[in-house]
Amino acid sequence: MVDEKEVLQEHDQHGVLEVSSTLTINDREELSLAYTPGVAVLARRIAAHPEDQRVYTVSGKLIAVVTDGSAVLGLGNIGPGAGLPVVEGKSLLYQQLAGVNAIPLAMEQTDVDKLADTLEEIAPSFAGIHLEDIAAPACFALEDRLKQHLSIPVYHDDQEGTAIVTLAGLINAAKVVGKDLADLRVVINGVGASGVATGRLLLAAGIKQLILVDKDGVVKADDDRFNEYQRALACESSLKPEATDLRDAITAADVFIGLSVGNVLSADDVKKMAAKPIIFALANPEAEIKPETAKEAGAAVVATGSSQYPNQINNILVFPGLFKGLLESGIKQVTPELEIAVARALAGMVKQANADLIIPEVLNEQVVPTVCQTVLDYAAKLK
Amino acid sequence: MVDEKEVLQEHDQHGVLEVSSTLTINDREELSLAYTPGVAVLARRIAAHPEDQRVYTVSGKLIAVVTDGSAVLGLGNIGPGAGLPVVEGKSLLYQQLAGVNAIPLAMEQTDVDKLADTLEEIAPSFAGIHLEDIAAPACFALEDRLKQHLSIPVYHDDQEGTAIVTLAGLINAAKVVGKDLADLRVVINGVGASGVATGRLLLAAGIKQLILVDKDGVVKADDDRFNEYQRALACESSLKPEATDLRDAITAADVFIGLSVGNVLSADDVKKMAAKPIIFALANPEAEIKPETAKEAGAAVVATGSSQYPNQINNILVFPGLFKGLLESGIKQVTPELEIAVARALAGMVKQANADLIIPEVLNEQVVPTVCQTVLDYAAKLK
Repeated sequence: MVDEKEVLQEHDQHGVLEVSSTLTINDREELSLAYTPGVAVLARRIAAHPEDQRVYTVSGKLIAVVTDGSAVLGLGNIGPGAGLPVVEGKSLLYQQLAGVNAIPLAMEQTDVDKLADTLEEIAPSFAGIHLEDIAAPACFALEDRLKQHLSIPVYHDDQEGTAIVTLAGLINAAKVVGKDLADLRVVINGVGASGVATGRLLLAAGIKQLILVDKDGVVKADDDRFNEYQRALACESSLKPEATDLRDAITAADVFIGLSVGNVLSADDVKKMAAKPIIFALANPEAEIKPETAKEAGAAVVATGSSQYPNQINNILVFPGLFKGLLESGIKQVTPELEIAVARALAGMVKQANADLIIPEVLNEQVVPTVCQTVLDYAAKLK
Repeated sequence: MVDEKEVLQEHDQHGVLEVSSTLTINDREELSLAYTPGVAVLARRIAAHPEDQRVYTVSGKLIAVVTDGSAVLGLGNIGPGAGLPVVEGKSLLYQQLAGVNAIPLAMEQTDVDKLADTLEEIAPSFAGIHLEDIAAPACFALEDRLKQHLSIPVYHDDQEGTAIVTLAGLINAAKVVGKDLADLRVVINGVGASGVATGRLLLAAGIKQLILVDKDGVVKADDDRFNEYQRALACESSLKPEATDLRDAITAADVFIGLSVGNVLSADDVKKMAAKPIIFALANPEAEIKPETAKEAGAAVVATGSSQYPNQINNILVFPGLFKGLLESGIKQVTPELEIAVARALAGMVKQANADLIIPEVLNEQVVPTVCQTVLDYAAKLK
């Protein structure tokens, strides 16, 4: 746990970020380089060669970490102001872990089209957009539109970040239990932003049997209680389950991936799963099942979202190195191929996977360089 | 002049700004303070006490320096990308001269309502908005709407900044020629963003006789070739000139303020002015009249926008200290009273005004503290 007073104290001077500069202004000569007439040289240069904009201004390196506060941590829709500490924290992680420049942006809650309009309007100022804590299903339409319209990378950490780390962990978990990744029968419980993205990435990585369970039960392609993104995903799974709830859906599953809320999986559920079940109980602060309970019920590998247990599935493993690589390589789109490559690289960092070690530690210093190099290698292959 | 190669070199690593942090993350404990679960403490706190948002996040100290690139320096409408170096330069000046945190934002060109929508949508992220290089008359409607809707200070440097420094210079210039400020007959040539704002502030400061000249000639309140802002200003002047062009309007004027383009005022024009004429030829890079020519024709005081001559009228004298004061005092609106107080304070810094010294030097280290203190004093009186 964390000391509330200490947290407040560490942040009470208007947050934890500052703007610094690479030029100093001590005299008129330095002023003329840093400001007029120097900036007129740059303005004319960019007017004549628009492609130079990101060479000569911070728009070539600055990431916007954007939220509307509609799905903040496990706290729900608490608004843009209350969402700011999270995007500021992410910006801090970019700077501290990868030397990437990022600033937090909280946006008034409006509809998807207005959010997209706003981001498209300010996009010339940035080298990339990191979306954060934006509720499903709005986040899907928002990201789709931004990816179509913008020439800078757009990434939604709750989607792609969670999907990549989950896949990385699952690659090693499958090894630990001696099963083929492609043969796994996977139940995803909680089909919001991260559930949909994780389902999509698992399918792209070769997994065929996916059962999706949301609060209305098992997602069926023809059931209009579920949104179009959930139904499309169900449609792509080779498995068309009869089951209508988690209790039945879990039977004979190899993997349970919880991206939902605390305490929804029981020891009895785990016992109904296939041999050597894999449990990713990723809800925070309370997991879908206590790791101790899952182990006692026979789970072979357990991962959580918490640092209190082994195998922490944490997006910090992805975004700092990913954006460092995107900026260095100039890649404009985060594709499923790139996501799978990053997941494999993260999994590959664990040399001797075992039940308590399927994913690198969050602050392992090799994580950022490994993820960054994976992006650079992927970019090199594209050329 | 400035060496183009040197300018490009100083900026070619993606500009001159970086994001730095006041917290380091070396271990899990520091991670828990800087990110989860620490940020959850802050998110819950702000959800319960929205007024704490700007205490615990950078939104309490970060200024957005915003342009749409529609009126960049003297280069005209060259677009948001080419406008970025200017707003980045201003952000650098904030940081270097006043320790104020600011980031550059270039926005796609759209109509006033969409620009305002966008700024209102991202306003929760910022402690103030500095508008820059946005063309008239759009800038007037934009600023009016933002000032009405937002609870953070909104300031347009081309308007308020120019107006304040011009008034400061004029206060001392009037002293030098031994005339009363209130009695001056003033011609403003160029009635765009800065011309309108300067006219408004001169009226607020007690000047009554204003003649406005734009490219269609002398502004008349009933002439619909001029926009509503220009006409309203003409209406407020006690002088209703017969003259229709600058040639005639300049006759018997005490002051010429040029906020237009180079070489529009001749030696003959200066000779037609009242005794001891004051010439502010502020166009850049070429002034409305060469200072040497103006002096030869009898000008008693000459100011320009250039650092090559005495009396540089430069907005750098205003915005860093102004926003430092706004942030420290919590004032939400830049009012004409505050603008006049700042102009008087700047003028007051010059102890023995003379024809070559009516305004402090741009890098005078007392400027920022003086302007900041003026804002704090004004705030104290409001309470």
